[in-house]
Amino acid sequence: MTSNTIFFDFVCPYAWRGLELAQVLRKAGEQQFTLKHFSLVQGNHPDNAGQKEPVWWLTDQPGDAGERFQKSSLLAFLAAVAAARQGEEASWEFSLALFRAVHEDKKSLDEDAVMAAAKAANLDLDGFAADRKDEDALRASLRSDLAESAEIGVFGTPTFVLPGGEAAYYRFENLTRDLETARQWWKLYGEVLHSGAGIATIKRAKNRPAKKA
Amino acid sequence: MTSNTIFFDFVCPYAWRGLELAQVLRKAGEQQFTLKHFSLVQGNHPDNAGQKEPVWWLTDQPGDAGERFQKSSLLAFLAAVAAARQGEEASWEFSLALFRAVHEDKKSLDEDAVMAAAKAANLDLDGFAADRKDEDALRASLRSDLAESAEIGVFGTPTFVLPGGEAAYYRFENLTRDLETARQWWKLYGEVLHSGAGIATIKRAKNRPAKKA
Repeated sequence: MTSNTIFFDFVCPYAWRGLELAQVLRKAGEQQFTLKHFSLVQGNHPDNAGQKEPVWWLTDQPGDAGERFQKSSLLAFLAAVAAARQGEEASWEFSLALFRAVHEDKKSLDEDAVMAAAKAANLDLDGFAADRKDEDALRASLRSDLAESAEIGVFGTPTFVLPGGEAAYYRFENLTRDLETARQWWKLYGEVLHSGAGIATIKRAKNRPAKKA
Repeated sequence: MTSNTIFFDFVCPYAWRGLELAQVLRKAGEQQFTLKHFSLVQGNHPDNAGQKEPVWWLTDQPGDAGERFQKSSLLAFLAAVAAARQGEEASWEFSLALFRAVHEDKKSLDEDAVMAAAKAANLDLDGFAADRKDEDALRASLRSDLAESAEIGVFGTPTFVLPGGEAAYYRFENLTRDLETARQWWKLYGEVLHSGAGIATIKRAKNRPAKKA
C-alpha cells in the first residue's frame, strides 16, 4: 500500500479535521498517510509573496520571535518532530492530542498544551524532553517538510498528496470519526482529483458558505 | 424542473467550458440553466477590494474606457443581453458562438466577433442592431446580474448556483460535448456541494496542476 501525505499546521482547524479523517482510515488499515508540516505563517508571509522559493523560513526564526501564530506554530512543529522520534503511533497520538486540545477543547497552543498532549499520547516524557533539546536536528527535519511543501506549492492545510502525485487543499467544515463517513469523504476527494474533467478548483461563493452539521 | 444558474464572463476560458457542459445537459433535457453575467474586471478591480458591496461597476463605465478586458467584456455582455431579447435559444446560441470564436478559434473579443456570433446564431440582424442601441436598458439588465453576483459573493467563472442555493466556482481544464461525460462532471460537482463533509474548497496545489486531456 503506497502512502498518501498530509501537510498540516497545528493552528488550522481544517487541518485538524483532515488529520482526524486520515486517522480513521489509517486505523481501519484502508489508507496510509505520512504526516508532514506546512507553515501558514511562512506561506502567508509578505516577504514570500510572489517568490518562486521562500526567502522567509519559519525555521530561521528564534522561538520567541514574531506574533502569536508564529511562536505557537514553531513550538508545536518542533515538539511534534521530537514526538515522532518515539515512532509512528506516538507521532499520530501526539499530533491528534495537540490538535484536539486547541480546536476541540479551545486551549491555547502553548507549552502547557504540548506537555498535556505528550502525556495524553503516553510519550516517554524523559525521552521527549531530551529530544526537544536537540533543536538543530528538529529544525532541520521541519525545514525539510517546509521545503517539500514549497516545491509542491502547498498554500493551505490540510493538503493531501495522493500516491500518484495529485495534491490539493481539502477544506471541509465537519468532523467525522465514523469509518463509513470517512470513506465517503475520502473517496469524493479522490474522484475530484482523478476526474477526466481536469478539475482545478471547486470553491464556494463567498456568501454561500458550506453548511456545518 | 427548477433551474440552475451559471454566472460567466466571455473573457474566461473556464466559463466557456462551463457553458458547453451546461448546454449538453440542457439540450438533453436533463438540467435547466439560467445565463447570468459576472464581470472579472469588476470583481478584481482594486477599488472593490475589501468592499462589502462593489463601488466600481462595469456598467458605470463608457464603452471605450479602460484596458482591453474591460472594453471587450462590456461590449460582449451588452451584445449578449441584446441577443437574449430574441429568446432563450438565441441567447444560448449567441453566447456559445462568441465563446467558441474567442476560446476555440482564438479570435479577438471585439465587434467583428460579436457580429460573426450573431450570424452563427441566426439572429435577426436588424432586430439585433436596433436592440443594441437601447443601451440604457441593456446596461440596467447587466447591472442586475452584476448586483446578484455580488450578493452571492461570486469571485470567478463559471460559478454555478444550484436550485437549493448552493453556489461554487467550478474550474476544470477539459472540454466535453459528450452527454455521458457531461453527466458525470455535473454529478461530481453536485456531490461535492451536497456532501455531509461541508466541503468549502478543493483546490490543487500550485505546482501540481490538473491534467489537460
